[in-house]
Amino acid sequence: MPPLRVTVWHEYRHELKHEDVRKIYPEGMHVVIAAAIKEHLGDDVIIRTATLDQPHHGITAEILEETDVMTWWGHMAHAEVAEIVADMVHRRVLEGMGILFLHSAHYSKPFRKLMGTGCGLKWRDAGELERIYIVDPSHPISDGLPAHFDIPHEEMYGEFFDIPTPDELVMISWFEGGNVFRSCCTWKRGKGKVAYFRPGHEVFPSYYHPEVRRVIANAVRWAAPVTNFAFALGAPNETRSLSPINTTYVINEELHKPTK
Amino acid sequence: MPPLRVTVWHEYRHELKHEDVRKIYPEGMHVVIAAAIKEHLGDDVIIRTATLDQPHHGITAEILEETDVMTWWGHMAHAEVAEIVADMVHRRVLEGMGILFLHSAHYSKPFRKLMGTGCGLKWRDAGELERIYIVDPSHPISDGLPAHFDIPHEEMYGEFFDIPTPDELVMISWFEGGNVFRSCCTWKRGKGKVAYFRPGHEVFPSYYHPEVRRVIANAVRWAAPVTNFAFALGAPNETRSLSPINTTYVINEELHKPTK
Amino acid sequence: MPPLRVTVWHEYRHELKHEDVRKIYPEGMHVVIAAAIKEHLGDDVIIRTATLDQPHHGITAEILEETDVMTWWGHMAHAEVAEIVADMVHRRVLEGMGILFLHSAHYSKPFRKLMGTGCGLKWRDAGELERIYIVDPSHPISDGLPAHFDIPHEEMYGEFFDIPTPDELVMISWFEGGNVFRSCCTWKRGKGKVAYFRPGHEVFPSYYHPEVRRVIANAVRWAAPVTNFAFALGAPNETRSLSPINTTYVINEELHKPTK
Amino acid sequence: MPPLRVTVWHEYRHELKHEDVRKIYPEGMHVVIAAAIKEHLGDDVIIRTATLDQPHHGITAEILEETDVMTWWGHMAHAEVAEIVADMVHRRVLEGMGILFLHSAHYSKPFRKLMGTGCGLKWRDAGELERIYIVDPSHPISDGLPAHFDIPHEEMYGEFFDIPTPDELVMISWFEGGNVFRSCCTWKRGKGKVAYFRPGHEVFPSYYHPEVRRVIANAVRWAAPVTNFAFALGAPNETRSLSPINTTYVINEELHKPTK
Repeated sequence: MPPLRVTVWHEYRHELKHEDVRKIYPEGMHVVIAAAIKEHLGDDVIIRTATLDQPHHGITAEILEETDVMTWWGHMAHAEVAEIVADMVHRRVLEGMGILFLHSAHYSKPFRKLMGTGCGLKWRDAGELERIYIVDPSHPISDGLPAHFDIPHEEMYGEFFDIPTPDELVMISWFEGGNVFRSCCTWKRGKGKVAYFRPGHEVFPSYYHPEVRRVIANAVRWAAPVTNFAFALGAPNETRSLSPINTTYVINEELHKPTK
Repeated sequence: MPPLRVTVWHEYRHELKHEDVRKIYPEGMHVVIAAAIKEHLGDDVIIRTATLDQPHHGITAEILEETDVMTWWGHMAHAEVAEIVADMVHRRVLEGMGILFLHSAHYSKPFRKLMGTGCGLKWRDAGELERIYIVDPSHPISDGLPAHFDIPHEEMYGEFFDIPTPDELVMISWFEGGNVFRSCCTWKRGKGKVAYFRPGHEVFPSYYHPEVRRVIANAVRWAAPVTNFAFALGAPNETRSLSPINTTYVINEELHKPTK
Repeated sequence: MPPLRVTVWHEYRHELKHEDVRKIYPEGMHVVIAAAIKEHLGDDVIIRTATLDQPHHGITAEILEETDVMTWWGHMAHAEVAEIVADMVHRRVLEGMGILFLHSAHYSKPFRKLMGTGCGLKWRDAGELERIYIVDPSHPISDGLPAHFDIPHEEMYGEFFDIPTPDELVMISWFEGGNVFRSCCTWKRGKGKVAYFRPGHEVFPSYYHPEVRRVIANAVRWAAPVTNFAFALGAPNETRSLSPINTTYVINEELHKPTK
Repeated sequence: MPPLRVTVWHEYRHELKHEDVRKIYPEGMHVVIAAAIKEHLGDDVIIRTATLDQPHHGITAEILEETDVMTWWGHMAHAEVAEIVADMVHRRVLEGMGILFLHSAHYSKPFRKLMGTGCGLKWRDAGELERIYIVDPSHPISDGLPAHFDIPHEEMYGEFFDIPTPDELVMISWFEGGNVFRSCCTWKRGKGKVAYFRPGHEVFPSYYHPEVRRVIANAVRWAAPVTNFAFALGAPNETRSLSPINTTYVINEELHKPTK
């Protein structure tokens, strides 16, 4: 298989404005997220990054065309993402591109367009302990993880998380201060796969955390598009056809000799 | 329980423009849909109707406030529904209003906003046999129905239907010309319930069909909001609280005498 | 509608053996569970109770025939439930009877037969705070509940809970000692509905807790069978039929006069 | 990754008893199923076969230990599968082994134990056209398939199919004689993945059909266990721990240089 083409999109504002964030992510959070993916997927991926303040937010039709899976982190500037770019990303997911939304991207334009809900949640910025439990142990995103793992200091996100029922609920977070959260969820939209993963408040080094990095890499691989699948988007008129489309299939004798 | 307040929304254009449709629905399709609901739910519902060409499409903030469940049929004039009205309906569903989308409403603005997908499908207008199978027999929408029922002449809608994975798949249609369709589906969005039911092409009398009527009434009842449930939409900050909120509960001796 | 016929099944051993449990449930836990259901559903239910040490564990074919919804609590004597009775309950659920499993019934024979998994979980008997969050606010089982509620002292049950993916995840518990749990779940099996609700350790008065009682009553109502639905269990041979089964449907003019 | 270890289990009775079946599958259906998997997965798999009339039905603890994914076809002799072997397969799935049930295996002992339902369906042996539609286009099992494909002659299986709600519904079949069927479904059980795929009546050469073969190979790959995930089956007691289990994580500077 050819390498998976990944675009790590990042708002990249907090690092430039806040010294404490810059200390943690001196080159920007996107660089660390890209490295996490590379660490686990190696030559199976080709990664590019894109940021809000690049022309077209670093997202053109060509780049989308060449992207199999995108990751998205945004927070303070969701409103500055141009409607047309958000629509392009939305459409590209329907066409098959996978996408992983991280942390505060729950309020990003592409996520809200894909979900159809308000996407609100409760929050508390108290640097408390987050413990993440796997509740879908056979899911590819759980691959290689322990039954639960801890992040010593994180922002709290709590239920009710105003999302559609996830197709798959992979992880649930426990927070020291008395809250729970559906921390890793997946959905399908059109021909594309969508995942959400909670950790990543900018003032904590969560994207250096080994299990968090593993989840991100696993989610990117999971979100890879299915190849060759062809169906028409839109509403095509269809003529009636009751003749089988595959009337004959050749039996290849060579293939069916006993293997054992 | 107080009666369920239902608003039957209808585009109401085909009947006015096409003689053949008017013959089937002389007062408009909305009148027949309302009657179907009334036939089954009787005094448990209060029904009003609203149509596209009324002021504000017949939908004001007050009417939405007084609506527990809405039904929606539209086709030729989806684009004429004002964005602001579609947004009001969308938001009201998130707040708890149930909604049932009928037939060609798969392409209506409120449905697309709630789904987050393209909502396309294949179609063929050949007046063929549609056979609808129940695949979720314990669902309230299946109440009182046979294992399958037939509509002698309907428009075909076929897969792939570009919707999010339904929370519940209640019925699947078989079409004479060689197609299948997920015909009755449900989703949850915010505090509201959403259902889609396929039949209802305007040139056939499908809304007089006894099982179709039963499904519509069942779906309206199923979509009723849950009472009294309070949670904040949006993203409230939450302070830490580890003291139990119900520290005492009185044991009422009277209540717990043996019943048998 | 005729009243829902409910059978509250209880192991009824802890109360007889342990003074501390008997103090909380002097007439047995089943009496309190029955009262909780009656408190909320009143004349809409007829309740009987049945216990392990009655002949046939209080469960005969006739009683099952007359039961719409059953609740089940067991713990120390799961193994004493006769295989044939567990099979009868299992089969009756497939035929349409609703069932609510409470607390330690996660390891009961009927639950395991219905789930097909090991049904294990982690546990800790430390009397810690349990906080239960609603994550499916439009579900009938959430009706009338706050966004979350607390039980001051409960046994901990923690993930991984070895159940099939729930059809619906209604509530998630947070435990003071660092665990989370999928506390209220539903599944469908055959024509019957199945719910699980976590609280109810015998040494705490959880079945007097107002929100716990409300959940139990809501779940019983939710689990009510759908009426009149007929399909053959087993594997019937089916002859081909392409003639519509409903060739005509009468249009009742009276029904379709404008309602507004 | 090391190759996936696949065990193709087959009843292998029809071929020995019926000339018409033997003509289609002279070496047995298992040889053809194994070849289909090999055709698509090549060196990524090591395949062995096992049949009912081998000692222990060809299934020992050692073989299960060395099997990542099993496929299962049975029909006339479900009852002859020893209970203990069915239980071993069931338990091994809970521990992580993937399993693909084919066609009449819907009534096999392992499938019924995993499902918890009756697993009945309607059927008709009329050699009619089956048309299979993809309804989950981004699922790995749909990889490389067209929007629908036809099998000219197959046995009909029709709804209601008495299975638990699938975690994922991947394909729906249309049958010429007027029926639909949920033809490709998946579930999770414990740490294992379960798939069902409908085609494969023994008197038709369905396992030579190119799309059928692709689905089988895709399903085998999809069902591969997740590696390294450790959780205790059963019900372990857990001590309280509120100290983060990962208190430090080293930031590897080398890893986080800009990639672009």
